[in-house]
Amino acid sequence: MGYFSDLPTVRYEGPESRNPLAFRYYQPDRLVLGKPMVEHLRPAVCYWHSFCWPGSDVFGPGTFTRPWLTLGDGLDAAKAKADDAFDFFQKLTIPYFAFHDVDAVSLGNNLTEARSNLDAIADYFAQKMQQTGVKLLWGTANLFSHPRYQAGGATNPDPAIFAYAAGQVRNMLEVTHRLGGKNYVLWGGREGYDTLLNTDMRQELDQLGRFLNLVVEHKHKIGFKGTILIEPKPCEPTKHQYDFDAATVHALLAKYGLLGEVKLNLEVNHATLAGHSFEHEVAYALGYGLLGSVDLNRGDPQNGWDTDQFQNDIQETTLVLYRLLHAGGLDTGGFNFDAKVRRQSIDAVDMLHGHVGGLDLLARALLNAEALLADGQLPGFVANRYAGWKSGPGADILAGKLSLVEIADQAVAAPVPHPVSGRQEMLENLVQRFI
Amino acid sequence: MGYFSDLPTVRYEGPESRNPLAFRYYQPDRLVLGKPMVEHLRPAVCYWHSFCWPGSDVFGPGTFTRPWLTLGDGLDAAKAKADDAFDFFQKLTIPYFAFHDVDAVSLGNNLTEARSNLDAIADYFAQKMQQTGVKLLWGTANLFSHPRYQAGGATNPDPAIFAYAAGQVRNMLEVTHRLGGKNYVLWGGREGYDTLLNTDMRQELDQLGRFLNLVVEHKHKIGFKGTILIEPKPCEPTKHQYDFDAATVHALLAKYGLLGEVKLNLEVNHATLAGHSFEHEVAYALGYGLLGSVDLNRGDPQNGWDTDQFQNDIQETTLVLYRLLHAGGLDTGGFNFDAKVRRQSIDAVDMLHGHVGGLDLLARALLNAEALLADGQLPGFVANRYAGWKSGPGADILAGKLSLVEIADQAVAAPVPHPVSGRQEMLENLVQRFI
Amino acid sequence: MGYFSDLPTVRYEGPESRNPLAFRYYQPDRLVLGKPMVEHLRPAVCYWHSFCWPGSDVFGPGTFTRPWLTLGDGLDAAKAKADDAFDFFQKLTIPYFAFHDVDAVSLGNNLTEARSNLDAIADYFAQKMQQTGVKLLWGTANLFSHPRYQAGGATNPDPAIFAYAAGQVRNMLEVTHRLGGKNYVLWGGREGYDTLLNTDMRQELDQLGRFLNLVVEHKHKIGFKGTILIEPKPCEPTKHQYDFDAATVHALLAKYGLLGEVKLNLEVNHATLAGHSFEHEVAYALGYGLLGSVDLNRGDPQNGWDTDQFQNDIQETTLVLYRLLHAGGLDTGGFNFDAKVRRQSIDAVDMLHGHVGGLDLLARALLNAEALLADGQLPGFVANRYAGWKSGPGADILAGKLSLVEIADQAVAAPVPHPVSGRQEMLENLVQRFI
Amino acid sequence: MGYFSDLPTVRYEGPESRNPLAFRYYQPDRLVLGKPMVEHLRPAVCYWHSFCWPGSDVFGPGTFTRPWLTLGDGLDAAKAKADDAFDFFQKLTIPYFAFHDVDAVSLGNNLTEARSNLDAIADYFAQKMQQTGVKLLWGTANLFSHPRYQAGGATNPDPAIFAYAAGQVRNMLEVTHRLGGKNYVLWGGREGYDTLLNTDMRQELDQLGRFLNLVVEHKHKIGFKGTILIEPKPCEPTKHQYDFDAATVHALLAKYGLLGEVKLNLEVNHATLAGHSFEHEVAYALGYGLLGSVDLNRGDPQNGWDTDQFQNDIQETTLVLYRLLHAGGLDTGGFNFDAKVRRQSIDAVDMLHGHVGGLDLLARALLNAEALLADGQLPGFVANRYAGWKSGPGADILAGKLSLVEIADQAVAAPVPHPVSGRQEMLENLVQRFI
Ligand SMILES: [Co+2]
Ligand SMILES: [Co+2]
Ligand SMILES: [Co+2]
Ligand SMILES: [Co+2]
Ligand SMILES: [Co+2]
Ligand SMILES: [Co+2]
Ligand SMILES: [Co+2]
Ligand SMILES: [Co+2]
Repeated sequence: MGYFSDLPTVRYEGPESRNPLAFRYYQPDRLVLGKPMVEHLRPAVCYWHSFCWPGSDVFGPGTFTRPWLTLGDGLDAAKAKADDAFDFFQKLTIPYFAFHDVDAVSLGNNLTEARSNLDAIADYFAQKMQQTGVKLLWGTANLFSHPRYQAGGATNPDPAIFAYAAGQVRNMLEVTHRLGGKNYVLWGGREGYDTLLNTDMRQELDQLGRFLNLVVEHKHKIGFKGTILIEPKPCEPTKHQYDFDAATVHALLAKYGLLGEVKLNLEVNHATLAGHSFEHEVAYALGYGLLGSVDLNRGDPQNGWDTDQFQNDIQETTLVLYRLLHAGGLDTGGFNFDAKVRRQSIDAVDMLHGHVGGLDLLARALLNAEALLADGQLPGFVANRYAGWKSGPGADILAGKLSLVEIADQAVAAPVPHPVSGRQEMLENLVQRFI
Repeated sequence: MGYFSDLPTVRYEGPESRNPLAFRYYQPDRLVLGKPMVEHLRPAVCYWHSFCWPGSDVFGPGTFTRPWLTLGDGLDAAKAKADDAFDFFQKLTIPYFAFHDVDAVSLGNNLTEARSNLDAIADYFAQKMQQTGVKLLWGTANLFSHPRYQAGGATNPDPAIFAYAAGQVRNMLEVTHRLGGKNYVLWGGREGYDTLLNTDMRQELDQLGRFLNLVVEHKHKIGFKGTILIEPKPCEPTKHQYDFDAATVHALLAKYGLLGEVKLNLEVNHATLAGHSFEHEVAYALGYGLLGSVDLNRGDPQNGWDTDQFQNDIQETTLVLYRLLHAGGLDTGGFNFDAKVRRQSIDAVDMLHGHVGGLDLLARALLNAEALLADGQLPGFVANRYAGWKSGPGADILAGKLSLVEIADQAVAAPVPHPVSGRQEMLENLVQRFI
Repeated sequence: MGYFSDLPTVRYEGPESRNPLAFRYYQPDRLVLGKPMVEHLRPAVCYWHSFCWPGSDVFGPGTFTRPWLTLGDGLDAAKAKADDAFDFFQKLTIPYFAFHDVDAVSLGNNLTEARSNLDAIADYFAQKMQQTGVKLLWGTANLFSHPRYQAGGATNPDPAIFAYAAGQVRNMLEVTHRLGGKNYVLWGGREGYDTLLNTDMRQELDQLGRFLNLVVEHKHKIGFKGTILIEPKPCEPTKHQYDFDAATVHALLAKYGLLGEVKLNLEVNHATLAGHSFEHEVAYALGYGLLGSVDLNRGDPQNGWDTDQFQNDIQETTLVLYRLLHAGGLDTGGFNFDAKVRRQSIDAVDMLHGHVGGLDLLARALLNAEALLADGQLPGFVANRYAGWKSGPGADILAGKLSLVEIADQAVAAPVPHPVSGRQEMLENLVQRFI
Repeated sequence: MGYFSDLPTVRYEGPESRNPLAFRYYQPDRLVLGKPMVEHLRPAVCYWHSFCWPGSDVFGPGTFTRPWLTLGDGLDAAKAKADDAFDFFQKLTIPYFAFHDVDAVSLGNNLTEARSNLDAIADYFAQKMQQTGVKLLWGTANLFSHPRYQAGGATNPDPAIFAYAAGQVRNMLEVTHRLGGKNYVLWGGREGYDTLLNTDMRQELDQLGRFLNLVVEHKHKIGFKGTILIEPKPCEPTKHQYDFDAATVHALLAKYGLLGEVKLNLEVNHATLAGHSFEHEVAYALGYGLLGSVDLNRGDPQNGWDTDQFQNDIQETTLVLYRLLHAGGLDTGGFNFDAKVRRQSIDAVDMLHGHVGGLDLLARALLNAEALLADGQLPGFVANRYAGWKSGPGADILAGKLSLVEIADQAVAAPVPHPVSGRQEMLENLVQRFI
């Protein structure tokens, strides 16, 4: 009997259903702009929050009584966890999952053990994936939990720790490749600093740039076709992380020659922490062709943590999906629920409630976005607002055909231009019609 | 009789002075690391906060009774203001000032009037500068106050407004050149958006990139030798400004081919608003050779405004000066007091109190920084922490001589590395000794 | 021809309407729990944002070309403004408005002029109210804009300014009474401090307590039956305001003997600034019988200003209306749109868009709340969660029948209690069904 | 050999000492305003951060290799920890400590075991205190870590958990009494809510009020002469805690009849989280006679955590000490270093660095405050600013001798009052002279 045996498999029952364990919007095969919903969204359960975290926080230990957390560090425990995890994926009929190396299995005491343990559990994952049809959205290596990484992995002052991190990433990148992962993610939880007093920032950034280049080179060498992704986050656990936000990572990629090779995995809660709307981060990344994948969750608007709650803001999610559809959608990426149930949500069914809510919100947002696009007023308004740049002097300016003096002289000769309304309230009301 | 006639000229009286209108640390000619203090700091009064702002805020009109604010928009009023301003600079014995075009004089109803008015007041400024020896740290054009710029200057959806902005910058860049300005600054107060609903971000960023290139080209054409500077700020007045912080501007400069041509004018309060320590912004900019100049002030740690108060944090300022000295100091830049007295500080003498405090804090910080450097423990600790990267495998990794697999294989063979203490508390205590 | 002549009167057209100037939810006479929607909501337009503010911000002057803003300070100008304002109220078919003394008319140079001007415009308002049927939700005196109030009104260090403020409030309270106002509001925009260095906080709080008592005594003396309301706000314009949030005002009312006499006017944006959800402030106030009225708007989640935008968060507003309905609704209060169109929204029609969106959101939220209550699952869950306190040992504890030792001894004897799930995700999903 | 055997006992060596393990300011016996420094400060080491926390954070396990953390849950382990702890107190020559019940010893599986274990370790503490002269500043019960408290202790929906909490507090209050503790603290880490959806706030606040009354009654019954203290904190671990800040607790105490019985233990970092300066919280509490004790530490100005770093802001600490001295100082309270070394500070000596820095900063601040008071300008300025309220109409107003109409009529007759400068910049500069 598995931990989730008593739970039903969740089915679509339509918007009027009052069954809390049914989908009201999520229909994987429903066509949206001619493509099945599931291919737009490619949703994933993350292993760490649901299968590794015990319900602890800074002020108290775990509250969850997951059986697999009581079985120790061996391969058997890892397999027992995987059995329940894949069972959960199936209850949810979700097509993807994502994991860190350390989520899957203990990495032992050195890199040799790490490789051997990881290979062993990867074999088991491969079997489970085969049996269930669940695929791997992305893999990643945890370079922030073990004490050796207290001062970072790639940005550690000690080259031997950089090398250890390189070993761990090599292993996990190869395993991700072997399991058919669609992407490989780097989140630099301790690639940053606790205090500038002991830190040479440029030195550390040069290390980080080198590390990323090594990863990209290895990806090509082994023939991995997935996308390498960086997940920005401004702080926490360190005071400052180098992958602060989308624009900061853009600077990093430009500086170290990685544009075209590395994209972004954007997380809602991390945008909040960086002082941005999530829509902003998405718009920036889409603008420069940098959006790879999304970690869907939410933070708490009143505190500064990475609370990783399930997203429940239909307006924000609708606008993000609208932007995505408008830009043509994701490529190898998807929507990973980087979210966890609250410490008080101690039952197996709570995990299902969390994911059902997240999936349904995402699906509803996709349908709203489709309708917004079909309506056409919003994209039309924006296109029209910038129409002056598509031809005539506007186009000449953008094309670099005119000097500052030429432009200025034209302005002297022309009538003084007047402002026009930005119609923000009208557009906000328009959006309300679609949520 | 000028507005400041009753005020004394401020003199150095030493740390023990109880005279509130004396300097306790600021001695322009005192040698610091072999260079006069004043050449390290190049301090400036800004025109806008002290001579244009009437003491208003969002909830009430001006409280100040400056005579020059009552004289209307004509050139005479502008000259009267300049008379008092230069008188104030002399009371303060400060070597530099900075101004926007609209601070100096009304720009009239079109670009022709704008040029003519600006040229007229520039002639007068030139005279006053000649008479007093006060120099121009930087000039800038105000592309955010006039209603025509409600949706931005360079990033306006209307190319005619872009062109008008080009005309204004052309004028002010040429006037700055004529007055011997050391730098030219662009602060993009409305180069951003109020709502993403009506915004094409990539379009606007392309416009901004083009605009900056036009400015750089014109600078070279007219032979201006000063530095072009961008002043980052994350928001306010717009919801989001494209020059969010140092790293975001770094990405912009890289994207639009402006590295090597444009540097940063960093403001303390803007770092605060962006969720950074000021020390962080300085370290980032210095790390990549991007630091041009500093707007010294402070915000309020408990609210989200750009309060532009005079800096009074000796620890933070000491650490910034330490970083600067360690990196070799500023080139064409200086320390502009982008700060204003509080709305309740309605007397002439309050303006002097504000600037005396700011100058003295800056001077004290410089002396502290000199002592920190001379002590040597702090820079020595940092250099030693990264020593592993200067030779052996660390140096080989950074030089790109090893692949991921080669590095990983070395790590497999090597003993497992152990973390060492970062000694944050010891270093924090060390700093306390110098403040 | 009035400023709004070209605009249509807004009518209800139902949820499917694509007319941006129609209501999709707001139907004043629709019965909700047996009472017309309009009596639940008592919505009001505020005079200040729509008829006094010129579209200025800290970085630029007004952008709006309202005719009444060009007519000077006389009574004629005040009447012209009122003509357009009441015309706007009718276009919107809104039953209430609210205003500060200084919104209606210039208060002249002293209290005698202030009274005379205020009485004159009040006569005109009385006429317009008679003609249109628009009623006064609340009046208030502006004790924060004039330079004399730079250090506060009631909390000013100068008793003469306290007295001047007393004169202004006396006048406005009496005018509010005369116009049949349902409430009288005090918002202490400068009742706080800019710096603690020059502040005796306890002294100022004692002044504030005395001032509020004077107002309450006068209310009773003149027979005003409306409610006296304090509007909490944590800061802005001062660094710290004494009416920080609902709980802080609760302490103030308790300390100065005002419980039962003074209630709260809660504003959404001010909750945000105080680090609370608006739902929190409402729950606190309702819990202690302190909720009087609501200023409906929203701030920007990414900056620290009082941006006073029109509310567009249907989830938050639904939950607030749900709490209100559950608690029995407002008494003399209503929903005042303390919101303004953006500086770029320069046309007359933008004002209509803003208010139509606000009214419709409010109405939709009310309907959602009615459905949530009717469904019964949410209130039922909460009631059941605390059922243990309604009888047996729980009831005895609350009733004070048991000592600490008695309770502790029972706990020693009883089985060790176990935690149960808080079901947060299930409840969040439930709410999604109603928005 | 104890863990700290190799560390020196820290001695005073004066401001010029370059020994990082010497005090430069802390001289316990130095007289300040006629009283030994140590009696002003009554500094304490907290048990939890230095002897219980393993260096873990949300993203990684402990990094510290403290021997006592490897010994299990038995009484022997508790004694071994105590041996090292008291050894550390002596190295630091600190007169006080503070602890939670669970810091000292495991509480076992029920209240009977809890009492027995706690009594056993209390006997051992009593011995160590006798031997070393170290005293107990305060004790407290941990009602937030154990899973049973996931939904609060006093505010738990389950009365049986309230009762269990009552049992734990009874035990710890009696033990604190037995050990001669000067105060007893309640920090309500989970007395709040994670979501309002499942919460009856008024019900929970009534429970909390009842709980506090039970504690106060028991204190009197057992003859404990120390002060009962509440430690405010706005959030973390819960989304919202009922003891948000000083004013919120003031409202709670007033509502539930606890004024005069319960005071505040204010923590710097918690003020930061609540959006206040620490100086504000201290001024509020002193103003109403509510200040009991202080938890000295600091948060990070750029993130939203309770980072509990050692305080290093000499300006803020000086101003707090100045306020305290001005108000007559603490009574039973002291300064508890509720601070921990960083996760990277893994050596025994780092603990000493942290505390030496904290103690020295506190001592330096006390000396600065003494000088500020002796100078007299700052207190004189404030007293003079409010002089108008001490006699004449100001005094009559405050004394309640005048009605609103009488005050208003006086204002009509009097000359219009004018604002005066608040001199904020001058006062800020004055403070700089003393730091
Ligand atoms: Co993530
Ligand atoms: Co996260
Ligand atoms: Co600036
Ligand atoms: Co600023
Ligand atoms: Co309001
Ligand atoms: Co507001
Ligand atoms: Co504490
Ligand atoms: Co804390």
